[in-house]
Amino acid sequence: MIIDCHGQFTTAPPALGKWRGRQIKAYEASRFRILPGELIIDDDEIVTAIEGGQLKRQRDRGTDLTLLSPDAGKAAQHYGDARTSLHWSQVSNDLIARASGLFPGRFAGVCQLPQSPGEALASSIGACVTELRRCVEELGFVGCLLNPDPSDGYWQAPPLTDPVYHPLFEALVELDVPAMVHVATSRNPAVPGGCAHYLNGATAVFMQLCQSRLFEDFPSLRLILPYGGGAVPYHWGRYRGVMLDQGRPPLEEALLGNVFFDTRVVGKRGLELLTDVIPAENILLASDTADTKAILDSLDTLTGAGRAAIYGENALRVFPRLRKLEAAL
Amino acid sequence: MIIDCHGQFTTAPPALGKWRGRQIKAYEASRFRILPGELIIDDDEIVTAIEGGQLKRQRDRGTDLTLLSPDAGKAAQHYGDARTSLHWSQVSNDLIARASGLFPGRFAGVCQLPQSPGEALASSIGACVTELRRCVEELGFVGCLLNPDPSDGYWQAPPLTDPVYHPLFEALVELDVPAMVHVATSRNPAVPGGCAHYLNGATAVFMQLCQSRLFEDFPSLRLILPYGGGAVPYHWGRYRGVMLDQGRPPLEEALLGNVFFDTRVVGKRGLELLTDVIPAENILLASDTADTKAILDSLDTLTGAGRAAIYGENALRVFPRLRKLEAAL
Repeated sequence: MIIDCHGQFTTAPPALGKWRGRQIKAYEASRFRILPGELIIDDDEIVTAIEGGQLKRQRDRGTDLTLLSPDAGKAAQHYGDARTSLHWSQVSNDLIARASGLFPGRFAGVCQLPQSPGEALASSIGACVTELRRCVEELGFVGCLLNPDPSDGYWQAPPLTDPVYHPLFEALVELDVPAMVHVATSRNPAVPGGCAHYLNGATAVFMQLCQSRLFEDFPSLRLILPYGGGAVPYHWGRYRGVMLDQGRPPLEEALLGNVFFDTRVVGKRGLELLTDVIPAENILLASDTADTKAILDSLDTLTGAGRAAIYGENALRVFPRLRKLEAAL
Repeated sequence: MIIDCHGQFTTAPPALGKWRGRQIKAYEASRFRILPGELIIDDDEIVTAIEGGQLKRQRDRGTDLTLLSPDAGKAAQHYGDARTSLHWSQVSNDLIARASGLFPGRFAGVCQLPQSPGEALASSIGACVTELRRCVEELGFVGCLLNPDPSDGYWQAPPLTDPVYHPLFEALVELDVPAMVHVATSRNPAVPGGCAHYLNGATAVFMQLCQSRLFEDFPSLRLILPYGGGAVPYHWGRYRGVMLDQGRPPLEEALLGNVFFDTRVVGKRGLELLTDVIPAENILLASDTADTKAILDSLDTLTGAGRAAIYGENALRVFPRLRKLEAAL
């Protein structure tokens, strides 16, 4: 089974974006709330949106299953207040659940979390745990997105290794689901979104992990760094040096039991570097607007076993709830 | 001639750091100023510091000339006010000038700029131009460091492509000196310095440049991205896509007449990627605590002409004032 671990519902029906626009505008204008129940989307619209988007991609690329999340960039948790982000997460996740349900066996849900920046951060983690439980236990989701910068481009929150995040990590461990560490939009003109903030987010978090002992406290916590880990594999020797300087075990031992990299890297040379530097058991297939799988197919440096691990076996291990879905089919 | 384009005076005599500590403390306590004239360092101390640091590195690695700047991380322009950064730049640059003068033909100066974050940014650019002129015209420097985030980890300034920076770019063009775009320290615990902020700084600025037409306004401006360009070569295909999406010429045409990458990448696989993806004429040798030159020597993918360009010819082109220094010897 070929599994794409990083599918975003970027083609969601326009009603979703319109609801979000109204939600933000009403709150900013008068602290008025547009409620989740005001979003009406027919099944037909969802079917059309998926068939022209992620399902088409599956067919074009020969993948069997896509882990489907809301559009990560649009989580944009800096808007409004904690309740704004809670409602937005609920409607976004409910839509993922419906889309997955309409195409049995093709998608598994990955949820957005109602994080909040600033003073609301700590209390928002409680709301994240509640929404994570709802998505996993009631809606059958297999993972979540975790934004390491809910201020959206200004890095106003403590590192993910801060104890403020521990309740969320406890829930992830208990539910046995991983988190993909994915920043949302950047509202900072100095750090543009998709080609700077997305990459820098993965890089920053990897270094946070190098400086902490988070995985000693949470030995079965699993985090996925998207975009091939940002700058990390390219500078692997630099991080090796960090661990050495701290007198700690090598990266492989200290981090690679818990940290995984996806293959959302555009271009053959980058994918060669990723698969040469990072052990195959730590790499998860992620497709992209560019077809990364076709490039991976062409790499003669990948062994059969390595390719099988990257294309699906690792995902079944990192997202163990996928096996339950598989068994239910 | 083998030229290391990225040497920092990290082994500066302890008196420099003590002066800086007193400067910050006095200002924070009572807005009192410790003046540049209060820093006393003997030539002997400088000789010892250089001989055990950058000169030893030259001998160990077989480089002939090092572009020597103040310790980039310690520029830390968020401390104090505009005058704090001005004084700190002056003493730091004067020390570089003295060190270069004590070892004729071994070093050429690259200056720190008295940038300031926040509201003082625009006026600080005027001070940067004055200090740049002093360093180039009076002290014989050949380039400068330019910090794209003088808030030191929170990215509070506009992108480098903003018109606020134009007076500095005009001076760089007129004086025919390049800028190495190098963030300073990070005071943000979520984005640690050397292994996240340094790399993310280069990545963010490359994307700023992809989104602007700065080099149409300043066709002879030259910017160097340290640390192999952060995440950029690893994600080269992603940036290609950005230019395509904007209907602009390819990266090679739009940016590579003006943007250069240094080789400060730890590890063979990273250096292979850099030299495979980026044309040799856009790469400048930079040594590191790890000996990048020894690794580059071992790469059989580099041609003789490419290696000659990377090891010295490009530096003479990007830093044309080096030729004047060379002629004066």
